[in-house]
Amino acid sequence: MKQRILVVGGLAAGPSAASKAKRINPNAEVTLFERGEYISYGICEIPYYVGKTVHDSDDLISYTPQRLEKEKGVTVRILHLVEGIDGGRKNILVRDLMRDKTSEHPFDKLILATGSIPKTLGLPGEEGRNVFHIKTLDQGLALKQYIDQEHPQRAVIIGGGYIGMELAEALRNNEIETTLLHRGDLPMSGLEHETRLAVKQELEQNGIVFVPRARVRELVADVTGKVREVLTDAGSYETDLVILSLGVSPQAELAKAARIRVGRHGGIQTDQRQATSIDSIYAAGDCCEVKNIVNNAWMYIPLATTASKQGWVAGENAAGGHAVFKGVIRALAVKVFSQEIAQVGISSQEATDSGFDVVTESISANSRIGFMPGNSKVHLTLIAEKRSKRLLGANIYGRDGAVLRANTLGVAIQHHLTIDQLARLDLIYTPPYSPLWDPILVAANQLGKRL
Amino acid sequence: MKQRILVVGGLAAGPSAASKAKRINPNAEVTLFERGEYISYGICEIPYYVGKTVHDSDDLISYTPQRLEKEKGVTVRILHLVEGIDGGRKNILVRDLMRDKTSEHPFDKLILATGSIPKTLGLPGEEGRNVFHIKTLDQGLALKQYIDQEHPQRAVIIGGGYIGMELAEALRNNEIETTLLHRGDLPMSGLEHETRLAVKQELEQNGIVFVPRARVRELVADVTGKVREVLTDAGSYETDLVILSLGVSPQAELAKAARIRVGRHGGIQTDQRQATSIDSIYAAGDCCEVKNIVNNAWMYIPLATTASKQGWVAGENAAGGHAVFKGVIRALAVKVFSQEIAQVGISSQEATDSGFDVVTESISANSRIGFMPGNSKVHLTLIAEKRSKRLLGANIYGRDGAVLRANTLGVAIQHHLTIDQLARLDLIYTPPYSPLWDPILVAANQLGKRL
Repeated sequence: MKQRILVVGGLAAGPSAASKAKRINPNAEVTLFERGEYISYGICEIPYYVGKTVHDSDDLISYTPQRLEKEKGVTVRILHLVEGIDGGRKNILVRDLMRDKTSEHPFDKLILATGSIPKTLGLPGEEGRNVFHIKTLDQGLALKQYIDQEHPQRAVIIGGGYIGMELAEALRNNEIETTLLHRGDLPMSGLEHETRLAVKQELEQNGIVFVPRARVRELVADVTGKVREVLTDAGSYETDLVILSLGVSPQAELAKAARIRVGRHGGIQTDQRQATSIDSIYAAGDCCEVKNIVNNAWMYIPLATTASKQGWVAGENAAGGHAVFKGVIRALAVKVFSQEIAQVGISSQEATDSGFDVVTESISANSRIGFMPGNSKVHLTLIAEKRSKRLLGANIYGRDGAVLRANTLGVAIQHHLTIDQLARLDLIYTPPYSPLWDPILVAANQLGKRL
Repeated sequence: MKQRILVVGGLAAGPSAASKAKRINPNAEVTLFERGEYISYGICEIPYYVGKTVHDSDDLISYTPQRLEKEKGVTVRILHLVEGIDGGRKNILVRDLMRDKTSEHPFDKLILATGSIPKTLGLPGEEGRNVFHIKTLDQGLALKQYIDQEHPQRAVIIGGGYIGMELAEALRNNEIETTLLHRGDLPMSGLEHETRLAVKQELEQNGIVFVPRARVRELVADVTGKVREVLTDAGSYETDLVILSLGVSPQAELAKAARIRVGRHGGIQTDQRQATSIDSIYAAGDCCEVKNIVNNAWMYIPLATTASKQGWVAGENAAGGHAVFKGVIRALAVKVFSQEIAQVGISSQEATDSGFDVVTESISANSRIGFMPGNSKVHLTLIAEKRSKRLLGANIYGRDGAVLRANTLGVAIQHHLTIDQLARLDLIYTPPYSPLWDPILVAANQLGKRL
């Protein structure tokens, strides 16, 4: 009999896993269930659609259900909600949302790619019709439509993480007066102090009102169901539009109900093969915790790259292969107006919390030869362990080449290079693109003096 | 008595060495001799001055003699030619070119940073007053002045290496019809075939006439001493201006006369401390051979980054320190009109010649998400050893982020990563700057399938 592989979730990890499983075992019957209408779209690109950088919403979709079926040989069931897993009998209970009928589907291997859910305030008004979470394509399309049709003048974004940053810029591109409420002193909590300060300045220089230490108390709606005022302990803000970008949590209820083990961040625990604690069930993507290979800690770091890679591994193993995913260093970046902001590895706080004896160094250096066109300052913070001199993490920001330089540092972090080795990297010098001493070398030499 | 450290040569390695020596031993008397009028200038930036990207020739100079003396405490003697070294008696013979007088200078430690000399055709006409080698600031200034004053309409560049590329663009920026004569089929001999083909196309798309397999027979001068025609076995070319960019050789005559050991490429041989075969004499920069740490071969790779680093090491050791320079991977890039062209590590030919069982893979991939502004194709060739799967070298070209991506590959090469490890790098995905699968990962995955 043909091997039956079922995949739950159609955004990033799910289609990766399903496609890979079918490629590894072309005789398998691979079926993907997705509760929504769309699969395989770029959630990360939605701010650029809202901000009018991308004009066609079809560009956001990598695979339609039809294309995934045709090109990858995967059976796709959209508008199908998986409601239960019976790990012992090896089947799942699926509700067809169109027909409102449930049916059981047996599996040989099951892959969970149930993704994440946006955090909420838990306050009345949060379901107002001008309040948006940007977690699905539907929500992105709805926000865009709301802006285009109702021409809001003022917006309040609640939450100063990277989605908040991207949406702040997107709203400014729509000429909307935008206020960003954040619980902390500075935006982008995971980054180093200096980087966060630069992010705040960049926001303010681009007309965003940044309100620190703002805890939201109430969303005050009018009779039409629109939130008109956001009350906080740092003042109240009139608005035509509210965006919640409070971060996400792993969507692991289905797994928990099936007694699959979850970790302390609430995400599904897997081994390197993406196998869960229950035989024949794998998990991948934002529903999982992931091992940070810098400090060997299990963390919750939902990222599309990780989801795709874990999906591949889960799919390959479900189909009989032997793939491993060793973990991440955390490699992320965000555009904040004209600044490239990147983080690789762990933060100084995480490093201290992990028991490292931490030393940091921040420098500014030219991205190119000083007098060449396109030159601007790159700002770099290195985080190292004092004893071993090992590089643990870095922040880079600037207007030119910050993100790609972060990748170079990422390789150094991933492969346990010391600051001495960093200082000895043979990097390119060519006037139009990079200075004699790349900012990476400047920072490594500077930090090296203190080790 | 104070330690006397003498440095011969004032371009890149010399000032580095002298400054570092003084910093390590502030009590030393450090004297730098330079035969020319200028020190510490950016030879690599001269094409951008000729091409009107940089407008002020003062920008090309990092340190004047006065500034190096004042800020670094180094005594600088310009227009002083070192004519001989007596390694036994530990002194050098120096000619003051202004007064035409020689004098002897004793040393405790001597650092040779005599640089390189441009290769010549060995043909009559080569000294014509409209024939330029671009090897010194004087020559760069003279070329610029010639263009500004005599408005040449047509130019012939002889030699299709990277200086030839940069000068081709510089001449086009001056609206000069430019023909580039090259001995090989394709420009940029050290690069992979596909990259070289792209360079040729980029030249031609920007109006440069590229003539392959052109061996120059004669430079025909008029009565005023200007070369008017370049005769080759691939046709003859009328011209108002000739630029020779035939590459450079190590300038090691002084060292050879002192019986300092030179290698098979004619460059001074040093150990990791930049010490030569004669006690108390160090060497650094373009006059030296350098170890390529990818194949452990001694090569001649004259680059400003190497010169600076070797200068530091020679200076530190001359002053009593213990520094080492382990070698290079070769990391270089050139701008050819709108293409970034980069090479890291060894070429497929060098790899084969070194006895590696070579496998290569070339791919094209998006530099950013396909529909994002600024996206364009990045073309990547990876060179690996089949048995160990180790990455040995890479070429990248494209209009967006090729050079900085080459640095990421450079770290992988320098630290002996395999193609599997390359495929597992945790690289940044963020729509405005990089795609879900960075071109590096695309190439590594593709090559991985064949290993």
